Amino acid sequence: MIPTILKDGKFGKMSPTPPTENASNIASLLLSCPDQVGIIAALANFFAERDLNISRYAEYTDDGQFFSRLEWPMNDRWDDEAAFAEEFSGLADTYNATFEARFMNRCQSVGLFVSKQPHALIEMLNKYEANYFPNIEISFIVGNDESMQKLADRHGLPFFYIATDVDTLEYEKKQLEIIHRYKPDYVGLARYMKILSANFIDNAGCPIINIHHSFLPSFVGAKPYQMAYDRGVKLIGATSHFVTADLDQGPIIEQDVARVAPGASVQDMIKMGRDIEQKVFARAMLKVLEHKAIVFRNRTIIFN
Amino acid sequence: MIPTILKDGKFGKMSPTPPTENASNIASLLLSCPDQVGIIAALANFFAERDLNISRYAEYTDDGQFFSRLEWPMNDRWDDEAAFAEEFSGLADTYNATFEARFMNRCQSVGLFVSKQPHALIEMLNKYEANYFPNIEISFIVGNDESMQKLADRHGLPFFYIATDVDTLEYEKKQLEIIHRYKPDYVGLARYMKILSANFIDNAGCPIINIHHSFLPSFVGAKPYQMAYDRGVKLIGATSHFVTADLDQGPIIEQDVARVAPGASVQDMIKMGRDIEQKVFARAMLKVLEHKAIVFRNRTIIFN
Amino acid sequence: MIPTILKDGKFGKMSPTPPTENASNIASLLLSCPDQVGIIAALANFFAERDLNISRYAEYTDDGQFFSRLEWPMNDRWDDEAAFAEEFSGLADTYNATFEARFMNRCQSVGLFVSKQPHALIEMLNKYEANYFPNIEISFIVGNDESMQKLADRHGLPFFYIATDVDTLEYEKKQLEIIHRYKPDYVGLARYMKILSANFIDNAGCPIINIHHSFLPSFVGAKPYQMAYDRGVKLIGATSHFVTADLDQGPIIEQDVARVAPGASVQDMIKMGRDIEQKVFARAMLKVLEHKAIVFRNRTIIFN
Amino acid sequence: MIPTILKDGKFGKMSPTPPTENASNIASLLLSCPDQVGIIAALANFFAERDLNISRYAEYTDDGQFFSRLEWPMNDRWDDEAAFAEEFSGLADTYNATFEARFMNRCQSVGLFVSKQPHALIEMLNKYEANYFPNIEISFIVGNDESMQKLADRHGLPFFYIATDVDTLEYEKKQLEIIHRYKPDYVGLARYMKILSANFIDNAGCPIINIHHSFLPSFVGAKPYQMAYDRGVKLIGATSHFVTADLDQGPIIEQDVARVAPGASVQDMIKMGRDIEQKVFARAMLKVLEHKAIVFRNRTIIFN
Repeated sequence: MIPTILKDGKFGKMSPTPPTENASNIASLLLSCPDQVGIIAALANFFAERDLNISRYAEYTDDGQFFSRLEWPMNDRWDDEAAFAEEFSGLADTYNATFEARFMNRCQSVGLFVSKQPHALIEMLNKYEANYFPNIEISFIVGNDESMQKLADRHGLPFFYIATDVDTLEYEKKQLEIIHRYKPDYVGLARYMKILSANFIDNAGCPIINIHHSFLPSFVGAKPYQMAYDRGVKLIGATSHFVTADLDQGPIIEQDVARVAPGASVQDMIKMGRDIEQKVFARAMLKVLEHKAIVFRNRTIIFN
Repeated sequence: MIPTILKDGKFGKMSPTPPTENASNIASLLLSCPDQVGIIAALANFFAERDLNISRYAEYTDDGQFFSRLEWPMNDRWDDEAAFAEEFSGLADTYNATFEARFMNRCQSVGLFVSKQPHALIEMLNKYEANYFPNIEISFIVGNDESMQKLADRHGLPFFYIATDVDTLEYEKKQLEIIHRYKPDYVGLARYMKILSANFIDNAGCPIINIHHSFLPSFVGAKPYQMAYDRGVKLIGATSHFVTADLDQGPIIEQDVARVAPGASVQDMIKMGRDIEQKVFARAMLKVLEHKAIVFRNRTIIFN
Repeated sequence: MIPTILKDGKFGKMSPTPPTENASNIASLLLSCPDQVGIIAALANFFAERDLNISRYAEYTDDGQFFSRLEWPMNDRWDDEAAFAEEFSGLADTYNATFEARFMNRCQSVGLFVSKQPHALIEMLNKYEANYFPNIEISFIVGNDESMQKLADRHGLPFFYIATDVDTLEYEKKQLEIIHRYKPDYVGLARYMKILSANFIDNAGCPIINIHHSFLPSFVGAKPYQMAYDRGVKLIGATSHFVTADLDQGPIIEQDVARVAPGASVQDMIKMGRDIEQKVFARAMLKVLEHKAIVFRNRTIIFN
Repeated sequence: MIPTILKDGKFGKMSPTPPTENASNIASLLLSCPDQVGIIAALANFFAERDLNISRYAEYTDDGQFFSRLEWPMNDRWDDEAAFAEEFSGLADTYNATFEARFMNRCQSVGLFVSKQPHALIEMLNKYEANYFPNIEISFIVGNDESMQKLADRHGLPFFYIATDVDTLEYEKKQLEIIHRYKPDYVGLARYMKILSANFIDNAGCPIINIHHSFLPSFVGAKPYQMAYDRGVKLIGATSHFVTADLDQGPIIEQDVARVAPGASVQDMIKMGRDIEQKVFARAMLKVLEHKAIVFRNRTIIFN
């Protein structure tokens, strides 16, 4: 499932978790529609008429499509995102717009998947602890290697070990059970080294964000550092993207690269690559959790 | 003179040059005011009521101050920037805003100053020829080294050699005569290695943009690469800024850096530094000429 | 022809051009052999025994292969590279090494090919004029668009217009005639937009260096910026590589990237891409002309 | 104490810790002397005569001084660094060279100091756990804020809380007691926010590495992000350097920068700055622990 912005609030679930100290009094709106005269005025008026100050506004026009994001300090006008959506949908219909509101006082829930390599998970846990992300809760960690248990324990988070040495259908069923129990807003694949089936992606009920250890579209699939070495590239990179049924083909959220030193081995690349991977993954998760990503035609618009 | 945005169009001069092929049908508005409820709606409505489509909009709030830039496709409603300013000033007064409009069909004029090192000038001339900049005309080049004549000749531009081996007052007077004759919208110092007096800056009648060959505020003044070498920095940089009476202290428009190789000499730094300097200078000039720079409290807001 | 280092000096041609002011008194040696005990000592002794100071030395070991580059200030011991090669070949044979010496007092000749886009050519010409490169001569420019004539004229260089609206065999024959007349040490493709045939590459008699407007191996072939836009990458890049018969598959010399702004169009990418392309191309040409590139198994070792 | 390379092995202490799985069979040599003919041959012969393969060699010449680093796979010829130094000192004297050998099978000991901000410490601990560093042991953590205890506990490391609300002499005495008990090879200041006295530095008995949260020499001292904001720089940075008695003036080991988004507040800079600080600090510690840093005239030569 790609997190394109939906016309009506999709937020059936309200997390039972009490807002953390990071909870914020801000609401945000993502909106996308065909570019046309008056859309900005219509948006601005909607808020001005309700005496709400738009505290932050940004927009881009790309290929005839208009994308905007705005923030306002919440008051008690709307109880939740669904209430906002009801009141806003008239305007949206007029402009043939899709939109998604987020009330930041609602704690978002995140589930993380990991395999054997801990670095992307460690980065997420440390940044979570350091309040790098907005009002979120990491609700659970799923791993196919038992060694990750101790990382979860350190941070007091539930860890579910699900062996993947069985039939895909079987272990994905177990994974989906966890997901359906916690109903996370997002799942992050923190170097999870199993391909997810289309069925899993369809049934997860939330967007899934992956970190791939190459500068996509170069080096899709397994062993990208070996491929990068063999091709002799002078920069290696990492790519975080929304997961779709096509392997490593989903909309890209963030990428970065680093220069390869002369004489560097594949092992050297793997080692320095870890820093790029975890940095790119954390930045992409931040953008998604700050409600700054719109997907459109397999590309993303990422707001500052 | 710092190009803070002015309440009334400052553009007494309309360049006699016919619009080039780069001329555009776009107008832009820079606006700054204390942050307050309703300012975006007021702006949006101003244009919507006149049936004008805001084709691009961006804003930032910084330290309680609101900064925005917007573009609209021009029609024949306003003959020039002064006519727009007259109609817009009521709204601006209401919000205690300063603003500056620019009609891109008006060709902006640029004068360039250069000393002995040609690289920043060459970059400007080539990018000018390649239509990298919007609707501009490089009107003249002033140099204190005769060797620059041939560069001006290649591009068919007037070159004025003004020796600086005399009293500052004397050669600055000659320089001001050139400036007052051409009335450029901007003067760019493309590695001009003389300090300009406060009197010169006050009387130029237009913003002056400099490229300094260090990552300011490190290494103010002469021989920054030698200072960088002596301090053993691992990155060297360049800084383009608006010129004020305080040497290398004006509002920064753009900066960039590059890594120093181990064992690099001062000469190596100077050589690789040239690429950074000319790149940073061209980018800064582009931002200014695209009408994307606001100065506020000795800092700039630069729009994408 | 890939410029792997050859066992005997391949330099039949001595440029008739008198050494320029950039001519240097330095000789360099590139050497590659299976890694083994004593190779560094053998190299060092060869020079020490002849009372020559190795003024610069670097080496890398990669996948069991040893690569080194060293410089020494020339004296009159050897008249030319062939004389050096004769004396050095005994040591090289002992270690099963390939090598290539270069005497920098010999002016290297470079030919440039260009199509309609001038930016990479302009960068080369300006850096040539600024003595950015070591002791070289740009001997000729070949173009398939007449508009490039004026750039060649500015710099007083011979320009050969060869229309490519005919059979490949036909225009490549004309191109080869130019190359065989000038016998350049290197040919640089400064955004030359025709695919060279295997026959042409085999018969050029010198290495050919290309600049491709993408971060290879992503986006091989035509319209890479459109492909980059469609895929939604967050960084665009350029790649300079030695040309082989496989399109865009030759050994990579240099790459770099730049970040794409949100909302950037294909045109925006093309515009900002030019800066990366010309920078990467000039850097790659510099590395080759400074005798700092070794090709091994379709990869390069580039020395600092 | 600046870790310039010493003529005789300074390593009175041999860590009692058994070598970890990261222990390596490599020895390295750093050497510095006035540049002269034959030094490379002398070095190479020293090892070739003892049938030792130089597996890695690099050198730079800077301002008339020669710097080199080499590695060889250890055998049982020398029991320890002191034994090597005794045999090598004759050659070193001949060339007026200073040198330092390191046997990587000896576990190096590192002590870390921290204040209230945990990010640089967390990065060190995680990279330590991930075997990012060579054969080292983090022996102890000293902090002036009790909240860091839990981080030390997680990783099973001794934590010493030393309050700094007393006289400098007093708490530095306690800190020195810890240092003299553990005799670390290096002390890293992982965002330790107290100025160390000259007396402390002199008596620590090992090099001290600091991370400063600005791109030095810009913004020395306290509140560098506020200063960066006020000056309006477009890039912020971090600098890791050896500590000397002059605040933030010691030899720079590593620096890096990141771009400031338009409208970024001081808080935004602090948040994004953390990532740069911890990355730069870890890289600098890696270079020092890999025995790749030579100090010369308040600058460093850092080997790849």
